[in-house]
Amino acid sequence: MVREALLQSESSHTLDPQDWDAIRAQGHRMLDDMIDYIANIRDRPVWQPIPDDVRARFRAELPRQASELGDVYREFTDFVVPYATGNVHPGFMGWVHGGGTAVGMLAEMLAAGLNANLGGRDHIPIEVERQVVEWTRQMLGFPNEASGIFVTGTSMANLMAVLVARTTALGQSVRQCGVEGAALTAYTSKAAHGCITKAMDIAGFGSDALRCIEVDRFHRIDVAALRCRIALDREAGLNPFLVVGSAGTVDIGAIDDLVALSALCREEGLWFHVDGAFGALGILSPVLAPRLAGLESADSIALDFHKWGQVPYDAGFLIVRDGQRHRDTFSSPAAYLRRETRGLSAGSPWPCDLGPDLSRGFRALKTWFTLKTFGTERLGAVITRTCALAGYLESRVLAEPRLELLAPVQLNIVCFRYRAADSNKVNGDIVMDIQESGIAAPSTTLLDGELAIRAAIVNHRTEARDIDALIAAVLEFGARRSASEDGAVPELEQSPPLAM
Amino acid sequence: MVREALLQSESSHTLDPQDWDAIRAQGHRMLDDMIDYIANIRDRPVWQPIPDDVRARFRAELPRQASELGDVYREFTDFVVPYATGNVHPGFMGWVHGGGTAVGMLAEMLAAGLNANLGGRDHIPIEVERQVVEWTRQMLGFPNEASGIFVTGTSMANLMAVLVARTTALGQSVRQCGVEGAALTAYTSKAAHGCITKAMDIAGFGSDALRCIEVDRFHRIDVAALRCRIALDREAGLNPFLVVGSAGTVDIGAIDDLVALSALCREEGLWFHVDGAFGALGILSPVLAPRLAGLESADSIALDFHKWGQVPYDAGFLIVRDGQRHRDTFSSPAAYLRRETRGLSAGSPWPCDLGPDLSRGFRALKTWFTLKTFGTERLGAVITRTCALAGYLESRVLAEPRLELLAPVQLNIVCFRYRAADSNKVNGDIVMDIQESGIAAPSTTLLDGELAIRAAIVNHRTEARDIDALIAAVLEFGARRSASEDGAVPELEQSPPLAM
Repeated sequence: MVREALLQSESSHTLDPQDWDAIRAQGHRMLDDMIDYIANIRDRPVWQPIPDDVRARFRAELPRQASELGDVYREFTDFVVPYATGNVHPGFMGWVHGGGTAVGMLAEMLAAGLNANLGGRDHIPIEVERQVVEWTRQMLGFPNEASGIFVTGTSMANLMAVLVARTTALGQSVRQCGVEGAALTAYTSKAAHGCITKAMDIAGFGSDALRCIEVDRFHRIDVAALRCRIALDREAGLNPFLVVGSAGTVDIGAIDDLVALSALCREEGLWFHVDGAFGALGILSPVLAPRLAGLESADSIALDFHKWGQVPYDAGFLIVRDGQRHRDTFSSPAAYLRRETRGLSAGSPWPCDLGPDLSRGFRALKTWFTLKTFGTERLGAVITRTCALAGYLESRVLAEPRLELLAPVQLNIVCFRYRAADSNKVNGDIVMDIQESGIAAPSTTLLDGELAIRAAIVNHRTEARDIDALIAAVLEFGARRSASEDGAVPELEQSPPLAM
Repeated sequence: MVREALLQSESSHTLDPQDWDAIRAQGHRMLDDMIDYIANIRDRPVWQPIPDDVRARFRAELPRQASELGDVYREFTDFVVPYATGNVHPGFMGWVHGGGTAVGMLAEMLAAGLNANLGGRDHIPIEVERQVVEWTRQMLGFPNEASGIFVTGTSMANLMAVLVARTTALGQSVRQCGVEGAALTAYTSKAAHGCITKAMDIAGFGSDALRCIEVDRFHRIDVAALRCRIALDREAGLNPFLVVGSAGTVDIGAIDDLVALSALCREEGLWFHVDGAFGALGILSPVLAPRLAGLESADSIALDFHKWGQVPYDAGFLIVRDGQRHRDTFSSPAAYLRRETRGLSAGSPWPCDLGPDLSRGFRALKTWFTLKTFGTERLGAVITRTCALAGYLESRVLAEPRLELLAPVQLNIVCFRYRAADSNKVNGDIVMDIQESGIAAPSTTLLDGELAIRAAIVNHRTEARDIDALIAAVLEFGARRSASEDGAVPELEQSPPLAM
């Protein structure tokens, strides 16, 4: 290949546009549309079913030829935007989804333009991530030697915490020798998130090595039962190494007694990890902070900035009290990742020494913009308010004889149901009916075998009128479902005349 | 909390702006600046060291009060943009970093505005991801029953492949019982990426269970030695379960004999995974595709769209030939993730059944936009051209007596050095000097203990003149470093007068 041939081919081969003005204009249209989308989100249904012909459009052949960006964008506006998840909408109350902000969206655009790889090396994006680590350390009251890292979400952060605890229990030799013969056992509650089980599975222990301890009526781990089980396991020759507490359980938002768990772990010499997926950021709310007492004494905490922090997906996070143990678990030398004292290869340790990822996007930037632009007091006020709204929903449920509260409301999650014969079927149908109506989007869970309508108030846009709309919809669809013998809803195609 | 109090507090508590026009205008300024950044990237140094006072700015206290978005943005333009990684620049040749595109940046903004969580549920973002999975399946020649999923990067995808292979070898019971007593062994080459070792560590086997087989002079795995080692391990009572081939080794871009590895794995009943982090997308280049023969017969392939695919970070990917084995490894029921046949909870299986993540951003959108807008033929042409540029760099090295080629150039990576006494020190200094000069950004690696200047041509913007600038800089700094007795470069503060 001669230089001349290469030079001739150059203008046609870069993916940069021939005409920057055209892509710039297209970009401005996109930005205007997305700002409009967020600003006018109430005009849309929360969610709507995907028509078959729209779904079929996403079964196309591999595009070999180029297309106009404007045409691709039109497919996006016509067939993607109307059928999004719905969590930008104030009526979305399913699972635990943050609402995002325009600030976060703009920051993500900036990050994508810079296109930084946060695996390592010496550049400011790494310092921005370290800055957010430091802020999170201050928020959570961790010591200076703590270390932290962004990940996709808390499922990944919990897995990494299990691995740090594993290295602490077995020494760094586990990285060479594996877990064979270690007989380690871990402990969490029956109300803990399923990703703890998955983490034990992935780490090679198997889920049988995780003991899921009974909970009290508030879904908090039974600390006496935990202590008992640890003793039994020790007697059986097993090696307890880890307790995972929950700060906000997924079903009803329970917070374990973190002070008691911390004391027990210290006494027993166990790693104390807290799954604070959404609950840990409650520390920003002066009302909730006291209920998170003990969080500051954890060995590690996992949390998501994309839930109560309202940062766009994804922005999970792990913080570890003793940064050395964190590095001991994940750092590994490689010739092509050689570190230097100057140039691009300076600045060791790198984030790739703190987790399994080497290619990593710039999640820190949207979090940095969010924390700086809104400040932690305002973010804390949003968190307080989502809990107040949950309290309001609870009061509406308690005041309505046709409804029944299924669990104590402790944070921002309300589990309730419409009273009916064949309750599980009727309430499952009600939730699907409401989702399909576009009025609201609660989800469901099972509490002692009883299907609950589950509303988690996470979105900063949610207001009392959204709670009222949910209640009205539950009553309306409940009445229809109870009335219809075969369970089919009459006139489902028409929007229900709700009293809002 | 009464409804009236909540209603009163509402306008002040959402994070949406009071004034949408202001944030819209700010967003347009940001977009213009980022388009300018990409369009005029050649006017900037590739990379520059971070001044101490700039670094110190990112050691601030937790921001409790809100700030104006414009002020936060000014910090970004003044102190983040100038000190980015540099991989948008055509002179960046370090490690294996893609260059990104304006199209990818805009798509990422759209994704952040929609703020979809791709863990599951029934919404179009999930179908967009399935569409890209289907396209990738077609590209790689995998069967219809294949399944795929986006992840951060290939390090994560390789870990997941190890786990799928583990479940296949031991059955789903490994998820409950762990790896105790399994005595599994895996195989890869000495030239494989370090994340394979890390994956074996994380999965509980320990890195000792990974046999790193010798390579030939082209850094391809010695298949005869591999066969021999498998036999020895079987004789010793161990259970070989996995071979990881490389399609593009990190040091010099070698491609293992995938046909031979595939045949061996079939014969021996082993899982055949290919780490195709950057190399797998070579399948889009008609020139390279024949050299990837055998890739289509792998059991799983890991790759990154953010490298040769030019999608902004991060966009890693795993594809598994037998989707059922993939689901068997990661799916797990949970009450709060209950599946339905209609409503938001329809559409099972969900992506959370295919990996460790439950919170997942919309990586698929920027990849969908990239594939549709540019088409695979144009992306393939870019890939071909980066290899042609590597060939041009090789020819310049071979033609220059002061330079020495250290490895055969097989794809887009060139390893060479400046001939000097104390060569490792001099060449390490040359690379740091070049990085600090802002002219180019190669990285280094060690080949048989010899430090190589390593240039990986990945960016679609790189041209022959960037190769010429690299060569000129190596010669210039090489002469200075060789001339100076103590190794310090005279006049380092001044830009070197390079003959470009």
